[in-house]
Amino acid sequence: MIKIGIAGYGHLGRAAERAVDAAPDMTLCGIYSRRKLEHPKAFSMEALTAGGAPEVLLLCGGSATDLPEQGPALARLFHTVDCFDTHAKIPAYYDAMDCAARETGHLSLISSGWDPGIFSLQRLLTECTLPKGKTYTFWGRGVSQGHSDALRRVPGVEDAVQYTVPKQDAIERIQAGETPDLTSGEMHTRLCYVVPQDNVDREALRRQIVSMPHYFAGYETEVVFVTAEELARDHRGLPHGGRVIGTGRSPAGAVQRMAFLLDVESNPDYTAAAVCCARAVWRLAREGKTGAVTMFDIPPGYYSPESPEELRRRLL
Amino acid sequence: MIKIGIAGYGHLGRAAERAVDAAPDMTLCGIYSRRKLEHPKAFSMEALTAGGAPEVLLLCGGSATDLPEQGPALARLFHTVDCFDTHAKIPAYYDAMDCAARETGHLSLISSGWDPGIFSLQRLLTECTLPKGKTYTFWGRGVSQGHSDALRRVPGVEDAVQYTVPKQDAIERIQAGETPDLTSGEMHTRLCYVVPQDNVDREALRRQIVSMPHYFAGYETEVVFVTAEELARDHRGLPHGGRVIGTGRSPAGAVQRMAFLLDVESNPDYTAAAVCCARAVWRLAREGKTGAVTMFDIPPGYYSPESPEELRRRLL
Repeated sequence: MIKIGIAGYGHLGRAAERAVDAAPDMTLCGIYSRRKLEHPKAFSMEALTAGGAPEVLLLCGGSATDLPEQGPALARLFHTVDCFDTHAKIPAYYDAMDCAARETGHLSLISSGWDPGIFSLQRLLTECTLPKGKTYTFWGRGVSQGHSDALRRVPGVEDAVQYTVPKQDAIERIQAGETPDLTSGEMHTRLCYVVPQDNVDREALRRQIVSMPHYFAGYETEVVFVTAEELARDHRGLPHGGRVIGTGRSPAGAVQRMAFLLDVESNPDYTAAAVCCARAVWRLAREGKTGAVTMFDIPPGYYSPESPEELRRRLL
Repeated sequence: MIKIGIAGYGHLGRAAERAVDAAPDMTLCGIYSRRKLEHPKAFSMEALTAGGAPEVLLLCGGSATDLPEQGPALARLFHTVDCFDTHAKIPAYYDAMDCAARETGHLSLISSGWDPGIFSLQRLLTECTLPKGKTYTFWGRGVSQGHSDALRRVPGVEDAVQYTVPKQDAIERIQAGETPDLTSGEMHTRLCYVVPQDNVDREALRRQIVSMPHYFAGYETEVVFVTAEELARDHRGLPHGGRVIGTGRSPAGAVQRMAFLLDVESNPDYTAAAVCCARAVWRLAREGKTGAVTMFDIPPGYYSPESPEELRRRLL
């Protein structure tokens, strides 16, 4: 049994706890949080830095502020797996984790989950098998927690949820074999369910939202005003998904199409499937591997609890 | 530049030659065949067993008779990649290749291509991230060369092509979240375009075909009689494809759906994308790995000509 620790107990940490409990070869040895938790296996974060029991620590903090700080500190103490998902900052985060983990002979798998993670693998496999092709990633229909948070910080917004919605016409063009250059705004629309504060000027609020740089400017953005009750009733879930589509031609000109689709009712629950990465890290660490790695560096068989013989017999 | 040899020059060997020519980091050093070829880089198979120039040899022979014999013999002399695809015999073939390659310190990647290969990876990734789920593989619509060959051996058949066709109703049940136990015959139909010999009893021939054990018995099989001209005009290509569909639930009960779809105009051309596996074998062999491996054992980044830094920056 691989002894797993979970650092951070938000949506992802709770989903990871359930995934560890369901795994046949893992046991949960502690949940580590800055908050005081009512949980039989809860410890403070300080309990970790004093050196703890986990063989692999799942870092379930946020990518914005938690992981850049906690990640390297904890990578010096444990083998780790995280779901760092700020795409633009992955190279710098990789370097920091690689350096920290190497210092003390640990292994850190960064940016696992579904994107980055499974979708990254799909992009890689598509590019490698369709070298004369083009690969597109669409996200949604699903709740973007980053965009929902950004909406909630807008003055005049009481609460909000944002859905990222792929544009069907863009998907159809690519499926038909076209290889256009598309911006994210040409591939997605943004749908905002907003509970306005009392007496706010809704049209002014709408204009402010749709013009927010980095988040909504450059996108077709629809703002739908709803009541707090409607938001709670209809938009409490965290569904998400997306697709990676590749089209290309063989050197002889034959059309080749690949597509990977994901559709999940709970984004954190599927991201927590990254616990299978803890198994891979545990195995690679026992082979002596140290430093930072990504799913690009992991032999896929290492994710499975089954033996290589069984995998070849049953799945190859 | 990785020096690649190609052993066997049928559909797959010719497609592999084109893929090697298109790869930025590979050079073709020889095509080895039992037949006398009109080709500037053609050599006899004996030229190989005398020890040849390739750093990685692509074994492009057939799985029925060529590879079981050639594979272990050549694995003693070269690092190899093959597309051995007789699913039931993979464990025995793996053992033979592992033993042969280890003897002389070589590395052999077996059963690459799309199924086994990319589809195997999709089955594995789906099972590992949806542990409470079920995974299905559908093939087609596409030409099955094995079934076409079987038809051509039936007395009274002049020529024939067989398409494997997935059953849309089965796909829809699974996409709707059902997890039925299905036989291959409940998932696929078989469509046979047959050129009958002159004066043959067509109804008797049809009955004989649909009842052929291992091939058509247990399947809904449709036999369409066509002329030699119609077969040549409409059924000369080798399109294929399929899908791997997984549905499951997270431990908390959230529905999770994954699907991978492939649709290619030329089966051999896509299978030949396995040349990216030659790159992985070359790298792993330089690290000292020996014996037989499958795509389950390969870090996916090794398939790409790009550096790990570039892959993390661009695709993660």
